[in-house]
Amino acid sequence: MTALSFEITARSATCAARAGRVATPHGEFETPAFMPVGTRGTVKGVLPRDLADTGARVVLANTYHLLLRPGPDLIRRRGGLHAFMNWPGPILTDSGGYQVYSLGDTCRITDDGVAFKSVVDGSTIELTPERSIDVQHALGADIIMAFDDCPPSVDPRSLNATRRRLASAHSAGPEADHARRLDEANERTVRWLERCASRHACSGLADRQALFGIVQGGLDPDRRRWSAQRVCAIDLPGYAIGGVAVGEGPDQIERVVSLTAPLLPEDRPRYLMGVGYERDLVAAVRAGCDMFDCVLPTRNGRNANAFTRTGQVRLKNAAFAEDDRPIEPGCDCPACAGWGDAPRPFTRAYLRHLFLAQEMLGPILVSLHNLRHFQRLLLDIRAAIREDGWSALARRWPVVDPGSRGDAEPPDTPPSNRADAQESSDPC
Amino acid sequence: MTALSFEITARSATCAARAGRVATPHGEFETPAFMPVGTRGTVKGVLPRDLADTGARVVLANTYHLLLRPGPDLIRRRGGLHAFMNWPGPILTDSGGYQVYSLGDTCRITDDGVAFKSVVDGSTIELTPERSIDVQHALGADIIMAFDDCPPSVDPRSLNATRRRLASAHSAGPEADHARRLDEANERTVRWLERCASRHACSGLADRQALFGIVQGGLDPDRRRWSAQRVCAIDLPGYAIGGVAVGEGPDQIERVVSLTAPLLPEDRPRYLMGVGYERDLVAAVRAGCDMFDCVLPTRNGRNANAFTRTGQVRLKNAAFAEDDRPIEPGCDCPACAGWGDAPRPFTRAYLRHLFLAQEMLGPILVSLHNLRHFQRLLLDIRAAIREDGWSALARRWPVVDPGSRGDAEPPDTPPSNRADAQESSDPC
Repeated sequence: MTALSFEITARSATCAARAGRVATPHGEFETPAFMPVGTRGTVKGVLPRDLADTGARVVLANTYHLLLRPGPDLIRRRGGLHAFMNWPGPILTDSGGYQVYSLGDTCRITDDGVAFKSVVDGSTIELTPERSIDVQHALGADIIMAFDDCPPSVDPRSLNATRRRLASAHSAGPEADHARRLDEANERTVRWLERCASRHACSGLADRQALFGIVQGGLDPDRRRWSAQRVCAIDLPGYAIGGVAVGEGPDQIERVVSLTAPLLPEDRPRYLMGVGYERDLVAAVRAGCDMFDCVLPTRNGRNANAFTRTGQVRLKNAAFAEDDRPIEPGCDCPACAGWGDAPRPFTRAYLRHLFLAQEMLGPILVSLHNLRHFQRLLLDIRAAIREDGWSALARRWPVVDPGSRGDAEPPDTPPSNRADAQESSDPC
Repeated sequence: MTALSFEITARSATCAARAGRVATPHGEFETPAFMPVGTRGTVKGVLPRDLADTGARVVLANTYHLLLRPGPDLIRRRGGLHAFMNWPGPILTDSGGYQVYSLGDTCRITDDGVAFKSVVDGSTIELTPERSIDVQHALGADIIMAFDDCPPSVDPRSLNATRRRLASAHSAGPEADHARRLDEANERTVRWLERCASRHACSGLADRQALFGIVQGGLDPDRRRWSAQRVCAIDLPGYAIGGVAVGEGPDQIERVVSLTAPLLPEDRPRYLMGVGYERDLVAAVRAGCDMFDCVLPTRNGRNANAFTRTGQVRLKNAAFAEDDRPIEPGCDCPACAGWGDAPRPFTRAYLRHLFLAQEMLGPILVSLHNLRHFQRLLLDIRAAIREDGWSALARRWPVVDPGSRGDAEPPDTPPSNRADAQESSDPC
């Protein structure tokens, strides 16, 4: 018996897109699937019941954050993460690799693993491939990820100051060593995957949790090909594309994904980590990807940036002070559809007031809207695959047009969209 | 036609308690009723839909806060507060009097009214009885309150440092003048009520909004009697007891309420402002009070203090780190009852984790629980009135025993429980 099965139910005739179904010990989800991010065992500001109502069927949680607090043993004793966070459906945990590099006060990176200082109590914590798998066993997610070495795909020298600071945290050496560092990371990721797979195979849990490998290689086609070949040589129930969504533009994301996705086994789910905006998702689906996660719906929701089919709306903008429209007319989310016997939407004017008054209900309502926005997009993507209706999709979702990232009004977003500690708990 | 009708449907044979029904232009609510506080047009962290699910039928909003932001004219143009905050049921607004004294940077108190500096933009704002009524007309609540002069009922010299600081903000003169100040406030409150009633009568809105008068008088029986007689000489659809819940002990609250409630007209709803803990509510109901409001459920909820029938539970306490029980077994709130096909509670261990991680879901869940806790208490109180079942009520709610305020584990609560700006928007 395996922890995960994947069935493809429809294919596009004009591109590599496919629709399907992933079955896990905690239920099924349809693919392509968008996974909301519940970093610390909660999708910020959203009750699990309301999260399910947005159409989400699988959520992501972060091993790094849960390792630091409340700790994997406590969660294991509570019956695992499903019971702890009261989410009975499928869960995926990442390995902690990305966060250790980008967030931790990293002390030492060796072939054995990574040592870093806990931001909770200052203690030194070692995370190795084996330890990451052990922690993910304690958490008990349906899908667990290999512990990878993931430096930024973009050379830090090409980045602006903010992004360079983020990127340099990944780098063990001076910037000139970037290429050497990428090679090292690529090779180390494969060695670490072997150790993860070995640990997992020996655990007796392979029938309850599915381990996915992660293809790295940055923006370089040769490194990507090398990584895909070596990673996919290890027989696993699914494979991920890592190392994107860490600062590249949409064209770079699309290039890497178009190159890498076809190199992954056709009959296994392909998970593009940390992506992203609507047009990135559609491009990745057309390249053959099946699973996605991103903090954008909740992080932008807390920052008063609401997604619509024509671009983001910055609700703090004075233009909305007396705007009685919902965020998006026709949307069926709790913010746009309202409630009760004679439902009325929560207006942009009211939402703006909530954000200016720093009221929690603003982040809550806009997070719910944004989560539903992405689930509605995925619903339409799955329909487009079945009907090969890509131009109809583009008409219904102008925001997915090439060139658009939906920020006609640029939102305040940090450079990376991947789940990380910058997913701050500040409600506004 | 009047804006409000009140029907008494049951009376206790052993005390002054009565059960009834208040009808307003936006629907009915049963009494005794507990009104959650939605200071800035939102009960903090709670969707209106979920608020209704707790059993709340009427909510309070604060004129002072809405006057400052977003302003009454903007709300009027949105169709009034019901439409703005998406709460179709009955709403009560206070007059702003209490907040002007306790929160505003007060510049000048005269017989005409109060001038204070806006905390939003520093501008000087004048609030007079007429202006308070005009603002409440713009907001459009079903029940509006007279603008009163409300110094603390307790002599500042008898208070500890924190409470003294709060109280001194109410006082126009040195502490020795407390008695004179109370007399002045008592008399001014009556003069201001006459001006409020006159403004309201001339507005043409008396058939859509019901004005309540407020009896002041502090802790002194003579002042209370004087105030009740003068205030109730003005024919109004309801009367409130003000000037309690600003720092006194439960015995003092009970003494004032037992004295004052019988002085109010038998056939009008009696509203005890800003109270309070469970045993205060039961004592006030037994004295003949019908309506209550208090920030305790949401403010304590945000501070990880959960109400139970045996006292408050401080969820950050290390004792709950591995506690798999719900806040209160048998409770039907979203936190205790859970959700989905096989509902499980959100455990104390998980709630503690959420608060330690400063996750919004902690304040959300505990606020929902606390709101439901008070609605369940009121349900049982109404049943106790119909059945004269006071000892059964006390058995089901050990926390209402005389002497108990339900803080076996003392919560972090500021001295006053009245709706005010100390109802901070910090989610934790």
